[in-house]
Amino acid sequence: MNRRSFLAGLTAAASVHAQSVNDREAIYARIEDNQAAHIHKIQEYVRQVSISSENRGMRECAELTRKYLSEAGCQETSIVNTAGNPVVWGWLDAKAKKTLIVYWMYDVQPVNEAEWTTPPFEARLVAAPAWGPEGRIIRGRGAQNQKGPQRAFLNAVEEIRAQTGGLPVNLMFVCEGEEEMGSPNLPDFVEKHKARLSKAHGVLFPTTSMTRDGKVQFALGNKGVVYMELETAGGPGGGPKFSELHSSMKAAVDSPVWRLVQALASMTDRGGNRIIIDGLLDRIRKPTPRELELFETYLTGYEGEATKRGLGVDRFADNVDTREALRRLWFDCSLNIDGIWGGYTGPGTKTILPSKANAKIDFRLVPNQSAAEAVQIVRRHLLRNGFDDVKVNWWNGYDPSQSDPNSALVRAALAVCQSHNMPVEVMVRMAGSAPHYLFTRELKLPLIQFGLGLGGGAHGKDEFLVVQAARPARGLAFLERGFVDLLYGFAELAA
Amino acid sequence: MNRRSFLAGLTAAASVHAQSVNDREAIYARIEDNQAAHIHKIQEYVRQVSISSENRGMRECAELTRKYLSEAGCQETSIVNTAGNPVVWGWLDAKAKKTLIVYWMYDVQPVNEAEWTTPPFEARLVAAPAWGPEGRIIRGRGAQNQKGPQRAFLNAVEEIRAQTGGLPVNLMFVCEGEEEMGSPNLPDFVEKHKARLSKAHGVLFPTTSMTRDGKVQFALGNKGVVYMELETAGGPGGGPKFSELHSSMKAAVDSPVWRLVQALASMTDRGGNRIIIDGLLDRIRKPTPRELELFETYLTGYEGEATKRGLGVDRFADNVDTREALRRLWFDCSLNIDGIWGGYTGPGTKTILPSKANAKIDFRLVPNQSAAEAVQIVRRHLLRNGFDDVKVNWWNGYDPSQSDPNSALVRAALAVCQSHNMPVEVMVRMAGSAPHYLFTRELKLPLIQFGLGLGGGAHGKDEFLVVQAARPARGLAFLERGFVDLLYGFAELAA
Repeated sequence: MNRRSFLAGLTAAASVHAQSVNDREAIYARIEDNQAAHIHKIQEYVRQVSISSENRGMRECAELTRKYLSEAGCQETSIVNTAGNPVVWGWLDAKAKKTLIVYWMYDVQPVNEAEWTTPPFEARLVAAPAWGPEGRIIRGRGAQNQKGPQRAFLNAVEEIRAQTGGLPVNLMFVCEGEEEMGSPNLPDFVEKHKARLSKAHGVLFPTTSMTRDGKVQFALGNKGVVYMELETAGGPGGGPKFSELHSSMKAAVDSPVWRLVQALASMTDRGGNRIIIDGLLDRIRKPTPRELELFETYLTGYEGEATKRGLGVDRFADNVDTREALRRLWFDCSLNIDGIWGGYTGPGTKTILPSKANAKIDFRLVPNQSAAEAVQIVRRHLLRNGFDDVKVNWWNGYDPSQSDPNSALVRAALAVCQSHNMPVEVMVRMAGSAPHYLFTRELKLPLIQFGLGLGGGAHGKDEFLVVQAARPARGLAFLERGFVDLLYGFAELAA
Repeated sequence: MNRRSFLAGLTAAASVHAQSVNDREAIYARIEDNQAAHIHKIQEYVRQVSISSENRGMRECAELTRKYLSEAGCQETSIVNTAGNPVVWGWLDAKAKKTLIVYWMYDVQPVNEAEWTTPPFEARLVAAPAWGPEGRIIRGRGAQNQKGPQRAFLNAVEEIRAQTGGLPVNLMFVCEGEEEMGSPNLPDFVEKHKARLSKAHGVLFPTTSMTRDGKVQFALGNKGVVYMELETAGGPGGGPKFSELHSSMKAAVDSPVWRLVQALASMTDRGGNRIIIDGLLDRIRKPTPRELELFETYLTGYEGEATKRGLGVDRFADNVDTREALRRLWFDCSLNIDGIWGGYTGPGTKTILPSKANAKIDFRLVPNQSAAEAVQIVRRHLLRNGFDDVKVNWWNGYDPSQSDPNSALVRAALAVCQSHNMPVEVMVRMAGSAPHYLFTRELKLPLIQFGLGLGGGAHGKDEFLVVQAARPARGLAFLERGFVDLLYGFAELAA
């Protein structure tokens, strides 16, 4: 099944556009008319600093987020304390049949201000740089990730309500302030409010799904991740306890560095690409027929050579072909060494037997692996293989998330793209990780990261969101209109 | 054979003291009388800064060393240019039957002046610190390593000549200025002057061989060392070529860190203590019966528990007993990781697939291994095991050195100790490394590091040489007298 025939299957869903046509046209017009105000709202939100890792502006940004939710029509809003930054909660009861959770982050990454073309928290409206998309952009930290798309979603909600006095779906807003820190307190929030949240029918994470060449890419899930720090040090199992020794003592003294190297090496084949930890891969479920269809469809448009150029690699791992590389990215658990260090790392020679060595590693997990179980299995592997001196100092992680491709929410998103004849690339999952499993697994809800916007620079310098563009299918109005369509489509499709 | 019976075998050698008794007593008296001047000479030498790694004072110190050799009676002295710091050469023709090479270093380690109790290049004569030996010390960089013992040797030579008008042996001085940099140009010097140097009968490296509890320790050799830096980086064999990637890409991209870890791991057993590189250990010769005797003798006085406490380890490697630990130190080739680094090494998490990883490793070599061959074997090992992407960026090293326990020079040194009823601990070799193989292997001469002095702090802070002591068998006069005895003993013993 190629991409064309796959999308053809969605034409039934596209018929949602037949509904409420008059309302919809009026809403679109309002969106166009009010662009200046909408842009201003995004700028205002970006200007409120909220760097979670530096604890800057978090309370203020939580208050601002709550104000936005109230203004958008939530009858119920609150700032819910957690062990860290609060969750901002909002409930917009539209007396609709369906309820959508909007998963939202109000924190942003830190900035290296010296690298930026304009100050990251001024959120200036500027011409797009020459290398970038045509038109005008908001440049600022959070413009893409995620204040821009989130505020655009609220703009869309406000215009729907202004035009119709209602909303096709009820909304629950779950706005966390620690996404960039690994969402340490979101599991607790979701667990506590599980009963209420479970009443929803899907979860939207507003984002920018468009590529520069006009395609829409979105994923039905994320790999999980579990990040651990391993440490070896001198102690009862041998090795220098207090400080490094002269390296000639190696003949008679155990080495913590060697132990770490051997412990790591015991986890993969010699190529460093195949995991050989007993039991770790047992839980991985096979791809479903539907996932394999999506894989084949996506593969037809996947450019292996361009991907390699983009990554700066001469070959894929183990020199496999493009098909196998994509299969691994989507369906395999990977084990990476993020960092390793021990002993003397300066220029020239220093002959020491170090007393300590460390490594940071991460596994990317696929259904039905879990982060907590992966840690248990790694610990068991170390013990069984005689590496009881290797400590797992700490870990954190996300489980994998996965949404049903046949769920109403996914079908609604595809229908929105189809209505604009936009090419869509649907990924079974992204290799990157997110806390979305809290919704897909704990609440058993489909989640999509979706939005017909274009942006870039997340986590880096000169982050931006395109707001005005020469072509119609670009820019803030188009992004907002996509959210309008998504809400109507979701409301009207059978579950 | 225990230490006592081993030493008893040396009483014949001790009879050298019957010779030239009148001269010897007069020389001892001169040494006592001239202590103030002798101490001053050492202070003067220490005060001449000569830090080779910082290129400070090297030419000046070479000149001073040459002046000393002339004053001591060398008919021939020269400053021989090399690709680095010059070698100072001296030839003292005493018309004697035997010739001794004095291997000498005129460079010293750098200093961290802030750590020192008194300025390291003032060479102050001060009371020994409370924790140290009783008496007075010269504190300064080079006081022990090696300006103090070397200048003490020259003092002894000058007093012999002053008293007798001659010297029992001819002396060749080979004074290098790059010992602390790994003696990069000494091989070339020795090679060029091999014909002349080969006429000598032994080599002395003047040092401080005494321990605080009044024993003499000396070794008949040094392990060799070969130090290499290994590197893996993205390239034709896979992995990111330009910069780190997001760690989720590990599923489809090779990792330079994994390759380095696996390449290292392929070199040892899981414990990190047994080398499994094909061919590396093949050249190791078995200990001779004489070496095994020395081992058994030394073992009787070797305190395993105290050694472990001193090293700060709970056990020896692989939890072996004291005998096996000492056997490994003396007779086994070891492989150490001095340092390893790659990727993110800061606090918390950063999810990256690094583009590069490095390790510094060193092998300690025993006869008949060689540094150059070890590098070849490591390279071959990497290629044969599919690690052709692991580069050996650079290496340097020393071959092992070994002196014949039955040589006249070794017997003369033992006889000197025996004449004072001092306990002697003779090591087959030290686990540490030195360029002495240039003499023992290239010139086939015995080399001893010897001197009845006491010092400490080499390479560290507050380096010192004991010069005045309450007990007679301590101090500079005793050290100088030991050199007098060594020269007479060496002259008189059959080869």
